[in-house]
Amino acid sequence: MSFSLKKTSGGARRGELKTGHGTIQTPFFMTIGTAGAIKGLIPDDIAELGGQVILSNTYHLHLRPGEDTVAKAGGLHKFMNWDGPILTDSGGYQVFSLSKIRKLKDDGVEFQSHINGDKIFLTPEKAIDIQHKLGSDIIMVLDECPAADAKKAYVKNSLKLTTKWAKRCKEFHEKSKSKSLLFGIVQGGMHPELREESAEELKEIGFDGYAIGGLSVGEPNEVMYDITEKTTPHLPEDKPRYLMGVGTPIDILESVERGIDMFDCVLPTRNARHGHLYTTNGIVRIKREQYKEDFSPLDEDVQSYASQKCTKAYMQHLFKAKEPLFLRLATQHNVAFYLKLMADIRSAIEEDRFNEFKKEFLEKFNETAG
Amino acid sequence: MSFSLKKTSGGARRGELKTGHGTIQTPFFMTIGTAGAIKGLIPDDIAELGGQVILSNTYHLHLRPGEDTVAKAGGLHKFMNWDGPILTDSGGYQVFSLSKIRKLKDDGVEFQSHINGDKIFLTPEKAIDIQHKLGSDIIMVLDECPAADAKKAYVKNSLKLTTKWAKRCKEFHEKSKSKSLLFGIVQGGMHPELREESAEELKEIGFDGYAIGGLSVGEPNEVMYDITEKTTPHLPEDKPRYLMGVGTPIDILESVERGIDMFDCVLPTRNARHGHLYTTNGIVRIKREQYKEDFSPLDEDVQSYASQKCTKAYMQHLFKAKEPLFLRLATQHNVAFYLKLMADIRSAIEEDRFNEFKKEFLEKFNETAG
Repeated sequence: MSFSLKKTSGGARRGELKTGHGTIQTPFFMTIGTAGAIKGLIPDDIAELGGQVILSNTYHLHLRPGEDTVAKAGGLHKFMNWDGPILTDSGGYQVFSLSKIRKLKDDGVEFQSHINGDKIFLTPEKAIDIQHKLGSDIIMVLDECPAADAKKAYVKNSLKLTTKWAKRCKEFHEKSKSKSLLFGIVQGGMHPELREESAEELKEIGFDGYAIGGLSVGEPNEVMYDITEKTTPHLPEDKPRYLMGVGTPIDILESVERGIDMFDCVLPTRNARHGHLYTTNGIVRIKREQYKEDFSPLDEDVQSYASQKCTKAYMQHLFKAKEPLFLRLATQHNVAFYLKLMADIRSAIEEDRFNEFKKEFLEKFNETAG
Repeated sequence: MSFSLKKTSGGARRGELKTGHGTIQTPFFMTIGTAGAIKGLIPDDIAELGGQVILSNTYHLHLRPGEDTVAKAGGLHKFMNWDGPILTDSGGYQVFSLSKIRKLKDDGVEFQSHINGDKIFLTPEKAIDIQHKLGSDIIMVLDECPAADAKKAYVKNSLKLTTKWAKRCKEFHEKSKSKSLLFGIVQGGMHPELREESAEELKEIGFDGYAIGGLSVGEPNEVMYDITEKTTPHLPEDKPRYLMGVGTPIDILESVERGIDMFDCVLPTRNARHGHLYTTNGIVRIKREQYKEDFSPLDEDVQSYASQKCTKAYMQHLFKAKEPLFLRLATQHNVAFYLKLMADIRSAIEEDRFNEFKKEFLEKFNETAG
């Protein structure tokens, strides 16, 4: 068994997930290194900040430099200098969000490279094969991710394809000698009964872990929490659960409470670029006048160079001067903040005080404060 | 005495320069942190790579965030988190290279901010005052830097102003209680006799060190070497000599041979941005096809994470994918290469084998190789 549940606190779960590159403490957040690189940070930085896993995107790495080049380099771990666990997605989400053209066929999906316009046909088998070649530790099935406002009939139909592709991914994966963990992805849009159906079908096939996909695609937060809450009871207790693409610190707390173990999100890195910095007291919008001569550190409670040694005034200066160093420091700080949140969540569950911790955190953290 | 000459090897000099933030081993290269930040690197990185001094630009810091803000932060060292020596220029060069308008008056120079178009009047006293407020360890006089093709009559006239301003800078500096080292700047264009005149006038005023300005402005390399060679004999032996804005590894070797102790140049950082990476065997233009699947490290002989752990293939991938991490790694490597060159030069002088070292280096280093 790759996953073991150690402790619960309310609905929150504390566990361990064994991978080919080490054991991960759950719940955890995965820093995004889309094309085998985090924005301005090296993998050693992530380890130093307490990061356990890096997520890379199959779609991007397939287009550039190509999985064969990565395989020749000795795999993605060696290529990017990261010895810890790597999760790769299947490319499905990017096909639906980045490609101008996409033709959905029974067999797979045809899409156009956003880099050079090449037409590419991605099948379930191909998605798994690419991830095997990359050598990632946790790999995802190919799925279709319907839009937040998709009609129920569309979602129901799409689900058939997603389940069929999931089965084909499993079969292809089983035939290979890969030791990667294979995760299924629950779809079903904003319809709890379709989510249940999807979860049951995937359990029937059997996976090392179960993701909830197709959320955080524009629906209200309450809908996302509700769908999560109505989906997790249909997932096996003894397997890890991954809420894809989520979310804000509040989303993470709400989702951990609903039994989620794994997260990834572009927010800490993307918001870093925009000068939105997460702090214990809320989001600091660094370009605001109030920080011009604020010589207090970014966040004394967060353990990173940027958080401790860089003042808000200095960060504002770097942001305004468009210094490339800003992105590195802002990313470092935001990632450190997220990783500390996860570490605090894990401790709180161990001490069976998750709800108290959540309350304390939210009392201090004001999303629109600064 | 702030400077002591320890050893020579041919024309090359090995010495020590004492500053308010530590003693610097000469000859040395200053990494450029224009607006209080190096491209993608933190000051700790520079120290780790063997960097001794950071250079910042008075012009940029005056415009943004302003010297008063930096002073309130506790000075530039504290603002940017660097405890070692800092040299600032006077702003003169940037006024001549970046401002659309500049009106030269007897009293100073009027220029326009390249950020918001504000008109600013910079006097010799103001240039020194700003540098005092920044708290830098080595400060430069305000000078006029004529173009490479300026007529002799223009240069001769310009020199009068430069000398007069140098005197005013010295007087203002002496009246203050600053412990910064003040450097004069020899001008005189491509005319050895004007260079001699300038050097003699500055010696008469008396400075802690002497810079050669107005070179590397578009003239042929041989002219630059020639002017340097004809200027250094007129500079005091017991003061450090700084060749401003120079240069390539070859320029540095040629200039050390002609008695120069201090260098700064945008090349390692600017070339990093363009994907030109300095290696023991010459410049690697990383986007070239030949590196696509070259899984050898950037440069095994250079001690930095990027040089040792990143393959040429990975660096090409980051460059092509426009990953922000590329700039950090490329800068780290190029700066490491330059700092290693300086360390090797210092060792070679100590062992009185500078000329042999220069020959060996140039045999391997092919500027147009890759």
